Amino acid sequence: MTTLSRLLDLAALPAAEIPESARTMARFSLFDWMVCGRAGVGEPLARILRDYVAAEGGRPVASVFGGGQAPARAVALVNGATSHALDYDDTHFGHVGHPSVGIYPAALAVGEEVGATAAAVAEAFLIGAEASVRLGMVLGSVHYNRGFHQTATAGAFGATIAAGRLYDLTRDQMRVALGLCATRASGLKSQFGTMGKPYNAGLAAANGVECAGLARLGFTSADDGVMGPQGFVATHSDAPSEAGVWDAPPPGTFVFEQIKYKLHACCHGTHAMIEALAAVRRVHQLTADRVAAIHLRTSPRWLSVCDIKAPRTGLEVKFSYAWLAGMVLSGLPTSADRTYSDALAADPGLAAFAGKIKVTGDAKVNDMQAAGEIVLTDGTVLPLAHDLAAPLGPDVLEASLRAKAMGLLGPEAESLWQAVVQLDALPASDLGKLLRAA
Amino acid sequence: MTTLSRLLDLAALPAAEIPESARTMARFSLFDWMVCGRAGVGEPLARILRDYVAAEGGRPVASVFGGGQAPARAVALVNGATSHALDYDDTHFGHVGHPSVGIYPAALAVGEEVGATAAAVAEAFLIGAEASVRLGMVLGSVHYNRGFHQTATAGAFGATIAAGRLYDLTRDQMRVALGLCATRASGLKSQFGTMGKPYNAGLAAANGVECAGLARLGFTSADDGVMGPQGFVATHSDAPSEAGVWDAPPPGTFVFEQIKYKLHACCHGTHAMIEALAAVRRVHQLTADRVAAIHLRTSPRWLSVCDIKAPRTGLEVKFSYAWLAGMVLSGLPTSADRTYSDALAADPGLAAFAGKIKVTGDAKVNDMQAAGEIVLTDGTVLPLAHDLAAPLGPDVLEASLRAKAMGLLGPEAESLWQAVVQLDALPASDLGKLLRAA
Repeated sequence: MTTLSRLLDLAALPAAEIPESARTMARFSLFDWMVCGRAGVGEPLARILRDYVAAEGGRPVASVFGGGQAPARAVALVNGATSHALDYDDTHFGHVGHPSVGIYPAALAVGEEVGATAAAVAEAFLIGAEASVRLGMVLGSVHYNRGFHQTATAGAFGATIAAGRLYDLTRDQMRVALGLCATRASGLKSQFGTMGKPYNAGLAAANGVECAGLARLGFTSADDGVMGPQGFVATHSDAPSEAGVWDAPPPGTFVFEQIKYKLHACCHGTHAMIEALAAVRRVHQLTADRVAAIHLRTSPRWLSVCDIKAPRTGLEVKFSYAWLAGMVLSGLPTSADRTYSDALAADPGLAAFAGKIKVTGDAKVNDMQAAGEIVLTDGTVLPLAHDLAAPLGPDVLEASLRAKAMGLLGPEAESLWQAVVQLDALPASDLGKLLRAA
Repeated sequence: MTTLSRLLDLAALPAAEIPESARTMARFSLFDWMVCGRAGVGEPLARILRDYVAAEGGRPVASVFGGGQAPARAVALVNGATSHALDYDDTHFGHVGHPSVGIYPAALAVGEEVGATAAAVAEAFLIGAEASVRLGMVLGSVHYNRGFHQTATAGAFGATIAAGRLYDLTRDQMRVALGLCATRASGLKSQFGTMGKPYNAGLAAANGVECAGLARLGFTSADDGVMGPQGFVATHSDAPSEAGVWDAPPPGTFVFEQIKYKLHACCHGTHAMIEALAAVRRVHQLTADRVAAIHLRTSPRWLSVCDIKAPRTGLEVKFSYAWLAGMVLSGLPTSADRTYSDALAADPGLAAFAGKIKVTGDAKVNDMQAAGEIVLTDGTVLPLAHDLAAPLGPDVLEASLRAKAMGLLGPEAESLWQAVVQLDALPASDLGKLLRAA
């Protein structure tokens, strides 16, 4: 029963008790989510879902990525899937799931429906995301390993709480909503590699809107559908555990703040090197022509994955330390998918630079780290070090997310960023307009 | 892979190969489903769902129990829950689930949407229901015992196939639809006793419509989301088994034909006695005044459940062999919930008759059987015997289902029955009109 009570407490947390640091991260996630969603509108699955929902029709209360308006539940389905289409959205390693794509679509759709402020949408998302990660920790890695997709399963509970907070549910109604979610939530990892994966994010969001909406109208459900006998957790995890999950509860601790963003559209094993090089470039205003050699030490597990010495295609560039190092020091955007063209693999400048890079496996370097040094042409040796587990400062994060957005969307990115900057002055419907865009 | 191939074969089964005996049972189920749905329209959960769907709005392509039209997916949700509200619909013990309430709402909603015939709707239901029971057998009792509600889980796959057949999906599209259903299907037994239970039936139906609809528009999903690694079966059953499930496959054998109907609105433990007495009454045109004594032998497990000697309320009558025996021999409708009034418990005629009945437990009688004899005032002794496991003949079934319908709905029941009689001449939209009613 602990987890259900904690979730209900969290759902009702007064706004004044929410720490600013958590709000800040929720706003970064809002920006990144809108960017991923706008970048995904041309994907076939996004078009199919827009067509499906347009054919159903209905009261146009919320906005669809790529255009159109529809009922909140339907919008949540489309927007969840659309924003996860590129697999480029945020990740929380507390439960291994993608909070934004399952929860923001529910929060914004309901926020538009009820005429909430944009700030209230971000706050409801934050509460829902925190709940989702905590519940995901209770479900544990055994849940994920059995085959369930936490983005969809734990995500649905987060979406339910976010939607329920915006619907202003009482504590009893929120309990009912979570009970309904227990019987509604679903999502399997075996969909990975198909449209079924982004669909899962849409399911989380749509399920949350429906369950909160029915609870609001007086539905009933199992008293504790989450933790009770044959509830969601008991049926979906072989070894659930509340141990430690609530030792440092909100509002004192928001585990959501450990959210990670995908900043580069290439193999995850190269990201620590890219961040290390980008930091050195920033601090020392380094250019590629001043580099004599780079010695990179990386986790041995990556050597067979992303150390392609002479990539032949754009796709292979995504798995090439040598090429990516040159790109970073030349100022090429590693964050934009379209950067990775086949022509890039044939670039003579990058090919020449690649000869300066030596990669070795080092068992002391874990798979989220990069280490080594850069030797400059004047003999200076600069250390190279990054750990993806370490939080980025807000300034670095802002710069990185805006660069990613610019790479994906071009000038449109700036209007999305400005909306987040001015969030406290906007109604949710203004965010909706940005989703629809021109 | 066997089960997926078999399901796809079944989904594409040519109409000419479907045995008449299976079609007949599908039509009895259609009648009983419409009766249960019409009888459920006043339940609070049905009203809430109608309100929810009406607020969403949308293209009015299919008909809602109790009035109104809406998109097929939304209609399936409302109609599934509404028809399961009274817990009075059909049951298949092959997997312990309620096929009609999860699958007919999907078949009829899509049938109306695409302008199918009423006969095509019944056929698509039959195919979907057969698929659902077979898949439920693969999932096994371990699935049910873990906490999953087969009506919702296996039912969703049946609804997907029924909807997909009416959408005229190709084999590849049907595979995609089942793959999507694998990640969409859900439903827990821990909702029993709340609105969450009938909601589960609505989930099955709505999920089926959505998954078939997306596959029709070109969605993709896991190659074998049903039986593949970390597919639905692997993640939702601890000991699934295909052994024996397909030994006698359709069209030669339709296990759906073993469908059972709830015919009396009282404790299940009394049903075998009621059928045994009703048969003797029918055959010998017996009236209560000609009965001197009844000796009933029943499973010992029922003695503590439904042998209340002197019921004080209408609810207690439902658990009283003595009262129910008198009701059957007096021609009172045991099928209508409203029969069981508190006044009935005080009826002096039934109280006097109750003195003639002696109930004993007999370990040789199982819990689906009744045995014993009736002694008439002229000294004749008539044997009393019924086994609920034995199929009822079509004539008996028709009479019983029509009596149940009359008890629940009054004269409206006859128009529903006439529609089923004339099914081959009607479009699906005519069934829709009956659901909406006046």
